[in-house]
Amino acid sequence: MSLIDGNAIAARIIAELTAEVAALPGRRPCLALVRVGEDPASVSYVRKKEQTAAAIGVDSRIILPAVTITQGELFTLIDDLNADPGVDGILVQSPLPKHLDEVAVFRRVAPHKDVDGFNTLNLGKVAQEDDTGFVSCTPAGIMELLARSGVDLKGKHVVVLGRSLIVGKPIALLALQKRAGANGTVTICHSGTSNLPAITRQADVLIAAIGRPDFVTADMIKPGVVVIDVGINRVADATKKSGYRLTGDVHFASVAPLAAQITPVPGGVGPMTVAMLMKNTVKARRASSAE
Amino acid sequence: MSLIDGNAIAARIIAELTAEVAALPGRRPCLALVRVGEDPASVSYVRKKEQTAAAIGVDSRIILPAVTITQGELFTLIDDLNADPGVDGILVQSPLPKHLDEVAVFRRVAPHKDVDGFNTLNLGKVAQEDDTGFVSCTPAGIMELLARSGVDLKGKHVVVLGRSLIVGKPIALLALQKRAGANGTVTICHSGTSNLPAITRQADVLIAAIGRPDFVTADMIKPGVVVIDVGINRVADATKKSGYRLTGDVHFASVAPLAAQITPVPGGVGPMTVAMLMKNTVKARRASSAE
Repeated sequence: MSLIDGNAIAARIIAELTAEVAALPGRRPCLALVRVGEDPASVSYVRKKEQTAAAIGVDSRIILPAVTITQGELFTLIDDLNADPGVDGILVQSPLPKHLDEVAVFRRVAPHKDVDGFNTLNLGKVAQEDDTGFVSCTPAGIMELLARSGVDLKGKHVVVLGRSLIVGKPIALLALQKRAGANGTVTICHSGTSNLPAITRQADVLIAAIGRPDFVTADMIKPGVVVIDVGINRVADATKKSGYRLTGDVHFASVAPLAAQITPVPGGVGPMTVAMLMKNTVKARRASSAE
Repeated sequence: MSLIDGNAIAARIIAELTAEVAALPGRRPCLALVRVGEDPASVSYVRKKEQTAAAIGVDSRIILPAVTITQGELFTLIDDLNADPGVDGILVQSPLPKHLDEVAVFRRVAPHKDVDGFNTLNLGKVAQEDDTGFVSCTPAGIMELLARSGVDLKGKHVVVLGRSLIVGKPIALLALQKRAGANGTVTICHSGTSNLPAITRQADVLIAAIGRPDFVTADMIKPGVVVIDVGINRVADATKKSGYRLTGDVHFASVAPLAAQITPVPGGVGPMTVAMLMKNTVKARRASSAE
């Protein structure tokens, strides 16, 4: 078994982007990070994005509306960022408070600044295999992890667990694309799937994104499989200072010995998401320079 | 084996729409049909759409640019239709001559008039399970055929042959949706799939959309499968006056006896496509009235 080291691969991408940004003419790229309210996980994610941006030479602008902001007010805020020529990328940190319509908010972000890839138009472009858009960061990061780990999906059976808009559906569309590295046969399973183990056991590449700790067990896989674990679940653990530990959707201890390659949690897909956000931001800056 | 009669089901939808249109307040719905050049199949398709529109009380406006039209000129023509308050739906007949960028042309059609459902935004909405958009007519017709034939995809394994933008990808996204009638586990196969028969034999519902005559044979299916044949292939046949006969992607003679339900070609999916175009046009009219 060989471990897919997301931290190391993300660090290489960050280093590449740092060199790329240093060579960019004109002003530095600028990423607007909008965080509504004080959800502790969101606070930590936005801080991490801000730090990574600083490290590669991308400016960030942190905008912290109160949790009571209305949808109309948030739209106005986004419209201002859309119109601001000094802003290349806009990220509205998910999850939003329940009184806000998340899909509508993501759709409000101008497609050419939508570095999170959640705008409906950019999702459609993934289906169309149109590279002018932005691919959302987690699925883009998975494709990059696979490519940099020597995994070519051509002729492989890729089984995706989960049909979320943020991971399951876009990664299925990406794995299916008619291009080098992709070209997989793709099965999408979910909570309504009958006889799931019979399907997951067919996977040459298994991508788990369901948010259920340790759900995929050794009896559900074929020896030699490549496993990408997208889950980041908090499980109570009294031995930890924080009171919890992080675990993926895959029962690592039993699955890893059978897998050809596997991502750990943490340190697998997670770090890639931030790296791909930066890659999208630099892409947005290049496109705005070209205008 | 029971035959899924697309002609009969489409006729029922047409009858429903006729009643619906008769009850609509204000002016009749209006569909603009743009056909570039004189491709014989396109001439026949556009005529059929015009006739069906007339039958249900939908006005149509036929626009026939010369085959030499430039992309810029076609964009201007589409912009004028987008801006015309008397036009509810716009269809640009595919295929376009090779000097025109089809995806860009479809993207130019205003999303709220895109009754063909080929605009990138409407494709993204299918992935988002957002009903405010338009689903492209062939996949929408397949879901309607299944629903009206008592086939519930819940817990079923749906195998889609083909990953086209017009059929394969949107029908996969529809079959996967978390809603009544859908909720299928979906596998998408294509020209790069290894060991295809082993996968198609798992299908509870098999949807063939690859454009290869008689490709799916009896050894590739499981007895009791529901087969939806989207292929419309012309095969040379000296016994026919036209010199050809139409055949699907499925070898009907050998597959039909094993199937629980199956669509014929012609008379299966084909008639549904025009019916769903009309349904989308009426939906567009209702939305424009509501403005």
